[in-house]
This record gives sequence, structure tokens and C-alpha cells, in this order.
Amino acid sequence: MGMDYSKAKDWILREDSYDHNHLGKTEAIMALGNGYMGLRSAAEEQYLGETRNLLVNGTFNKADDTAVTELPNVPDMTNIDIRINGERFTLDQGEIESYTKELNIRTAELKREIVWTSPLGDKVKLTFYRIVSLKRLHDFAIRIELTPLSGDVSVEMSSGINGQVTNTGAQHFTDGDKRLYDGVYMQFVPVTTQSGITFVVSTCHQFMKDDKEIDVPIEIYMKLRKIYGIFNVDVKQDETLVMEKYCDVYTDRDIDMNGKSQEEMQSIALTELKDMETIGYHALAEESAEEWKEEVWDPVPITIEGNDYDQFAIRFAQYHMRVMVPAHDSRMNIGAKSLTGEGYKGHCFWDTEIFLLPYYMFTQPKVARRLEEYRYLSLPGAHAKAAANGYSGAMYPWESAWLDDGEVTPEFLDVDVVTGRPNKVWTGFIEQHITSDVAFGVWQYYMITGDQDYMDKCGYELIFDTARFWVSRLETKCRQIKETLDPETNEIVLTETDTEDGLYHICDVVGPDEYKEHKTDNAFTNYMAVWNIKTAIQYYEDLKAGHPKIFERLNERLQLDQYY
Amino acid sequence: MGMDYSKAKDWILREDSYDHNHLGKTEAIMALGNGYMGLRSAAEEQYLGETRNLLVNGTFNKADDTAVTELPNVPDMTNIDIRINGERFTLDQGEIESYTKELNIRTAELKREIVWTSPLGDKVKLTFYRIVSLKRLHDFAIRIELTPLSGDVSVEMSSGINGQVTNTGAQHFTDGDKRLYDGVYMQFVPVTTQSGITFVVSTCHQFMKDDKEIDVPIEIYMKLRKIYGIFNVDVKQDETLVMEKYCDVYTDRDIDMNGKSQEEMQSIALTELKDMETIGYHALAEESAEEWKEEVWDPVPITIEGNDYDQFAIRFAQYHMRVMVPAHDSRMNIGAKSLTGEGYKGHCFWDTEIFLLPYYMFTQPKVARRLEEYRYLSLPGAHAKAAANGYSGAMYPWESAWLDDGEVTPEFLDVDVVTGRPNKVWTGFIEQHITSDVAFGVWQYYMITGDQDYMDKCGYELIFDTARFWVSRLETKCRQIKETLDPETNEIVLTETDTEDGLYHICDVVGPDEYKEHKTDNAFTNYMAVWNIKTAIQYYEDLKAGHPKIFERLNERLQLDQYY
Repeated sequence: MGMDYSKAKDWILREDSYDHNHLGKTEAIMALGNGYMGLRSAAEEQYLGETRNLLVNGTFNKADDTAVTELPNVPDMTNIDIRINGERFTLDQGEIESYTKELNIRTAELKREIVWTSPLGDKVKLTFYRIVSLKRLHDFAIRIELTPLSGDVSVEMSSGINGQVTNTGAQHFTDGDKRLYDGVYMQFVPVTTQSGITFVVSTCHQFMKDDKEIDVPIEIYMKLRKIYGIFNVDVKQDETLVMEKYCDVYTDRDIDMNGKSQEEMQSIALTELKDMETIGYHALAEESAEEWKEEVWDPVPITIEGNDYDQFAIRFAQYHMRVMVPAHDSRMNIGAKSLTGEGYKGHCFWDTEIFLLPYYMFTQPKVARRLEEYRYLSLPGAHAKAAANGYSGAMYPWESAWLDDGEVTPEFLDVDVVTGRPNKVWTGFIEQHITSDVAFGVWQYYMITGDQDYMDKCGYELIFDTARFWVSRLETKCRQIKETLDPETNEIVLTETDTEDGLYHICDVVGPDEYKEHKTDNAFTNYMAVWNIKTAIQYYEDLKAGHPKIFERLNERLQLDQYY
Repeated sequence: MGMDYSKAKDWILREDSYDHNHLGKTEAIMALGNGYMGLRSAAEEQYLGETRNLLVNGTFNKADDTAVTELPNVPDMTNIDIRINGERFTLDQGEIESYTKELNIRTAELKREIVWTSPLGDKVKLTFYRIVSLKRLHDFAIRIELTPLSGDVSVEMSSGINGQVTNTGAQHFTDGDKRLYDGVYMQFVPVTTQSGITFVVSTCHQFMKDDKEIDVPIEIYMKLRKIYGIFNVDVKQDETLVMEKYCDVYTDRDIDMNGKSQEEMQSIALTELKDMETIGYHALAEESAEEWKEEVWDPVPITIEGNDYDQFAIRFAQYHMRVMVPAHDSRMNIGAKSLTGEGYKGHCFWDTEIFLLPYYMFTQPKVARRLEEYRYLSLPGAHAKAAANGYSGAMYPWESAWLDDGEVTPEFLDVDVVTGRPNKVWTGFIEQHITSDVAFGVWQYYMITGDQDYMDKCGYELIFDTARFWVSRLETKCRQIKETLDPETNEIVLTETDTEDGLYHICDVVGPDEYKEHKTDNAFTNYMAVWNIKTAIQYYEDLKAGHPKIFERLNERLQLDQYY
């Protein structure tokens, strides 16, 4: 599908031909981000089948009472429609003379370079640059260079803030306040419908010709959920028109906006826009690339013995490991699709502990600690889930969102072709090994980093509290669950039989193999439950003997003596 | 823009070339409907810039607390994506050998006929037919004929029910229940978020080759707010593949679904689908055309002396006058954009009385009566608006939706380029002549039809109640309002001066010229207010003298004697 690894040695991932059937691929793998936000790399011009996403970590909202909480799709600022002599620029029409779309993972910059002839016969060269700043967590910027190659053209650009975007049809925002300041700075302030998070989304545009600033009048429109401008410029053959677009996003859930009023946020956002405008696109890109060097490439210079592709592959992983991780805020975690799209709704799973944590533990222990703090801070949700299911202690949600949301796994997905009904998603109910996976993450983090402070403040408590869950979870009957189809009602029915053998059992679970539901005594689940309880007993004894103050505090909170 | 009136004599409105810059034009003017629902004539295949709308009259919903009520965009069933040997059918790519899009206003059938060569070189002929049945208010149907002209092809069609559509970004529905019955009948049951209206939206597909039914296996998907199937068929050169899609829509607000449970509605919807399937597309189209003949063309055969275009133009108007009018239900009225799109949100304005009512009064008095019953039934909203503004009697909303909604004009629209703020929409606050326009409609209806029954039950009361509003509305001071821009705050400020001259005044209104706001003693407004009061006085005297029973009932309800 047009992927080209010939520049892997230069840290460049490249697509060398446009394919309208597979837009999602480079939108996702070339996504930009900084842990605060993720920006899917959809093209500036629109395409059918595109998915345009801007997601801010931790800003969960429930679209309605029947939905689970998800990261809302923030009003879009990447769509810039371009017309050349009135003809819409789209790779679906006209002639493509050359096309490349590249992600430079060293600098975290996206670039598209296209020579295109419109259906009217006007040939233009277009180069699109885009960064999400790692230095300035709220900021991203776009630069477009347009050079007519076959004669003078008139160019129309339509660009602004579009809050008509949804999450696959679900609208998470009110149609918020819209304003135009000083005739050029656009600002939109929508609020999430259920969680009540105020977003301040702002943008402005700067035009240049051959790198000298020019004044382009703006024709401004405010529509439902949308504020945008139309810009018209005449450009001579071989002259280069440059448009730089600066964008920032703030929310009142942001840790650095704590205590700020809406007016203060709006003013900070405008000031930041003006700063970006002063600095300019290339310098913003440079300072962000420098931050990547200092934060990622210099401290974690992983070398793979192999070919260029192998070396590139590990760096590509490192790139995304930084893009996805909320290093700035321990009240959030890593979504299963990171911040590259709506899939998995921004929820975090056991993937954090089992697949991701090792990298951070070994390379950026401070970041790893934040991820582990998240699990500690979300104990209220885990208590709520345990209580709702009749258990004690902390029962972690299979899918986790905001700290006190508790379980957020959707209840139904896709269709059961036999019954014609939506499939019930059992993971949120019975994929219970997540609780010991979380405890395991804590233990593993401690083993690798030796972070005693975390253990004293959070880690022991979490391991005790999860062990308490498992103790309450054990069953003395061995239940076997069977799924059958009732031919009368065409519904799937669960029947169970049980035996008693004097042993403890953990019945009716989903293990790591999610294609097997309603299993009894799943090896992984049971082994990890035992490990969790044993580890708790060991720490109980250690603390009681060696750290009586910590022990007393936790014993009082969790009645540990009851269990021993 | 490719409109062709050469077939006007044959009642045919035709577009003879495809223009991706002006999709909205034929989507709207060729829209189909039956007063129960309106279906915008977007193409089966998707285009950027299209607006795909299915609106059911009277089913208003508020997207959130900050929005006004509007007709929600019902899950779409018209989108059918077609691939020829894997290549997406779109007029934006490949070669168009011929193209026509026609609305036959006599039969109310939409037809597109296209010969197209795909970018891969496969030439096909495609004909699309579509009707919204006037005979069966809940039903519409689509027929696609596909003939390969340059060799055998494999065809993939993707079709179903898509509830990911929004009203310009506003989502009005929960992600409702989805089901597949008997492996072929798709049903989706979303509920409006605020008004709680349950929709039952159902569809099925039938395939034929050279008019013999064939079995095409369905690959079924249920996604968020979406259920659809993918169908794959091989078609030989010069063979014709036919796909017929039957669709129906029911809601628990429908007058004919009154008292039915959701299960009953779902079952009625499935039975109706099966009926359509048995009848087949062409026979459905014929019975609908016959209904048009009986309801519209035979009883109202307007002849214009002039050319074919003039004759066509009056029939075109008659066509839309039938498409837009809820002849089946007096709890709803005619939206300012009828049912052809989201503009004006399905709200009715004074347009009903001033521009539309005359046609119905003279040609279909029963329909006219329903429109006038709507005004009577919406007195509670008019009372609420009067009370909220400190007046007596019935103050009609400038924009009117469901009976007791009251005023539903949006408060802000588009931008004030001077202040950078959204423009305040003053019509809902101060375009008050609507109240006497409604009274005028009643009087006019009575004058033309002589419908004494309506007057006795509704008409007198409405005229008295609106006159009561005007009496309370009169002011003894003559206030003059001036708009100025405060240079400090960059806000528009209203200042007023007043004088007393011993006369009554109606100050601070918008007259029929909506570009002039905050006017005092607007001629139309004042004249109509006087007319309204005088007409009420006349009826007061007439009734008191000649119809004491009616008079007593109304006098008791409205304390008329107080005013005389």
C-alpha cells in the first residue's frame, strides 16, 4: 500500500503513493502527539472515509445515558480546503505528478509534498508541514507552501475551527461560545455535555509570500459549532505562498489550568497563539524537535543490531511510546489505541502493566511512576466495581477511564450472526485478571526502580486492597458455565452445573484468550490471584515486622489483621 | 449549473451534468416526501459536501440545554456504496459518459441514469430510482440497475442503516437497539435524547438478475449507531443486476402508532417491509403515483397560460406544497424549509398563514384546517411566551415547533464582524406581528371556507386570545431604541429615549423587513394589531348577540367582558 522504508536510516516513515481506500493507515501510524493531546494525521483537504481526530487525554465524557465514557473528538483545526482557480484541491481528481507523505520520527514532524495538476490544468506544488509541540503541550501548528508551476493562479483557502465533528456520530459538546478577536484570532469554547469540561480551542493564520508576511483579508463565518475564514490570494507562477496556522487547546481539567477561570484560560490561549505567531512555524518545529532529542533520543538511545528497518522499528515504537504517554499528569493513563483514534475510546487496559510499563520503568522511571500513580488514584473506581459486584477490596475495571468512573467497558459490540442480536461484551464483567495485573505492575515497578516512596504511599496499599478482592472472589463450589442457543426464543442462554470438592475456585471468567468466555479456573487468572494474595501476605509480614507505622496506617484502613 | 427544462412538458425536472460544487441544489429541489417524512435527494454513493437528510415531521428534539428544538436527522438508508471490481463508484473519478438526474413531479419519482467508466476501465450503466410513497406514509424504496458494458465485473454493495448522521454535528439519538431478523431484515431503534421519541427504522434488500430474484449472501456488521450488510455479486457483460431496497420509519409520536407498544411498532415495521418486498419497487412506485393523481393532480388541475416552463413551475410548486404538508396530523405544521433539509430546524413561521395557507384553503380545505388546528393546539406555547414576557393572552412564537414548545427561535446566528461576537437573533424576542398573522390566517380561512365548525371550536377563541395579547402589549410611552457600539468593551449597547403623547404605541419590534431591528410603531405590526383587536371586538358583539352559548364558554375562559 505504498509504504516506503527506503529512508528508514534517516528516521523517516514514508508513503509514496496516495490510496483513497486506505486513508486510515497513515492517519494512525503517522499520528502526532505529546501525551497531552494526540492528533491523527488526516490530510488538510477532506476525503471521504477519512477520520479526523484530535483527542486530549483524560477529558472523558458520556455521550448519553446508554453510552460509556470516551475521549471526545475535539473541534478540528487541521481541515484546510484549498481551491486553485476555483477548483477544489483533492487527490481524487486531476493528475498527481508526485506524492509523498512522511513522518520524521526524530523531529516528530509530518510532511506531505505533492505536485498536482487540477482538472482545469493548473499545476501547483504543495508542501504541508505539521507538528504537535512536545515543548508546548497545548500547541500544534501547520505550514502550507503553495507554488504555481504552470501560470498565475488565484488561491482560496477555507480554514478555522470545526466543532461539527463527532465520535462516530456521538456529539460530546454543546455548541459553545465563538469569538473573533482583533479580526483574526478565532476562539471556540464548547463544554462536554455530561462531564462538564470546558475546552478553549483557538487558532489564527499568517500568510507570507517568499517568506515576507503579507496581509490577506479574512471573510469570517460563524455557523453552528463552527467558526472559519475564507482567504483569497493571487499567486504568480513560481512565487511561493505560505500559510501558517497556529492552534492551541486548553481545558479546565488540565493540571496547569487548575484554579484558572474560563476568562483566564481564554486569555492564556490567545497569548499563546500570539507567541506562536511571533516565533513562526519552523522555529516552533525546531524547539519541539530539540525537546524530543532531550527527552527521548539522547536519554534512551536504543541500538538494534540488524538492518536499517529493524533500527527504525524500535525508534518508531519509542516515538509512539512518547506520543501516547501522559507524562505530565498522573490522573490519566494510556488508551489502548493511544491517542491516534477513537478505537477503545481512550480507555486503558492491562496493556499498560503488561506491555508498556517495562519500557518506561527501564528508561523513564518518572513516567512509569505516573502510570502507577494513576492506578492508585483510581482505587475509588475499583472499590465501586467490587461493591457493585458484591465483593470486597479493589476490583479494577477491565477498561478504565477517569479516576472514579469505575468499569467503562461497553456492554455490546458488533453482531452475533446466529441470533441477529448485538454481541454481549463479557470482558467488563468477567475478565477479572486485570486486578492482579495491576498489582503485578506495582510490584514489577518496585522491583526495577526500587521506588520505596511510591510503595510507602501507594504500592503496599494497592497490593493489599487487590488481594482483599481476590479473597472475597474465591468460591467453594466449582461452577461450570455453558452457552446454548434457545431455539424457541433465538437467544443465547447460560446454564450452570456445580460440584464441591473442598477446594477454592474462580469460576466464570475470561482469561487472556478473549475468545473463550465463561471459563472456570483459568490458569492465568488463578495463578495471578494466588500470586497477588501471596505477595500481600509477604508484605503484610515484612511491614508488620519492619515498618510498623506504615503497617498501622494500612491495617487501620484495610483491616488487614482480619485476613491473616 | 446543468439544469435542463427541455422536458418540462413531461413534468420532468432534469439536471444534465454532475457538478460537485453544487450538490445541495438538486438534493433540495428534487427532494421527495409525503408530509409525514421528507427525504433529501442526495446520491446513493457518498460525496464530500453532500447533505443527507431524512426528517419526520413533528419529531422535535433538543440536542442539549443550550440548543433549540429541531427535527432530528433520522438514520440514513439512502447511502449505498458500490464497488466495481473493487473500485469505488464515484462521479469524482473515472469517466462520465452520460449523466442525468431527474425528478418526475407527476409520479414523484427520482431517477438517475449514468454511464461511467471506472479508473480501472470498467464501463457500467447505472440507473437509480427512488420514491417516498404517498400511499404508505412510512415507506420509501430505492431500485438500482447495474449493467456492465465492457466485460464481466464483480460488484460489491454496502448498504444498511446509518445512525452516525447528525444535524450539522448535533446528535439527537441514543445508540439504539440493533437487530437482524431472519438474516436479512435490519432494524434500528434509537430514541431522541431529550424528547424521548422512539424511532423504528427498518430496511431490507432484494437482488435480481434480468428481473429474476437471486440469492446474494449478506455479510452483516453492527457498529456504533450502524447496521449494514456487504453484498458481493458477479455480473456478466450486458446482464442487469437489480437491487431493490425497502425502507420504513415509524415513531411512537405518529398518530397512527398511538397506544402501540415498541414491540408492536417493531413488528408492524417488519410486516410492512415484507409487504413492500412482495409488491416490488415498480408497483410501489405506481400506487404512489396513482395517489398523487387522486390527491393532487386530478382535484387541483391548475393550468397556466404561458409556455411549458410556466406550466411546469406551477406544478413544481404544487409538488412541493404536497411534499411538505402534514395532511395526516394537525399536531404539526410546515417548516420554513419544508422537509428538504435542516435549515430553519423544521420550525414554522408566519409563512404558513401568509404564503402557504391560501393555496390549501382554495384547493384542499381539509388540509388547510389541519394547519389552522395546529395553531389552536399550540395555544399553550403562546400562553407560555406571553406570560414569560409579562403579557396576557396568546403571544405566538416567531418560530414554532411542537405544540407546547413555545418560542424556539435560536438566540444567536453567524458573526457580527464589528464586535467579533455572534449576532443576536432578535426575531424570537421582538418580531411580534406573528401573533396577528396567525389570527389573520384563521379569519382568512373562515372567510374562504366558511368552516363554522372550526370557528366555533377554535377560531373565535384564538382571535380573542391574540387580541388580549395586543391589549396587554400596548405602551403609553413612545420609546425609541438606538444601537451603539461601546468602544471600551467592543459590545453593542441599546439605549432608549421616551416621550409621552397620550397615544398608544408598540415599541421595539422587528417588522416584516428583518434588516431593521428595534423599530417603534412599525406600520405592518401596528396595523395588524389594530385589525386583530377590531376583529375580536366585532366577533365579541356578534357572538354575544347571536351565539350566547359559545360566547358564554369563551367569556368564562377569557374574561372577555373585562375588555369591552
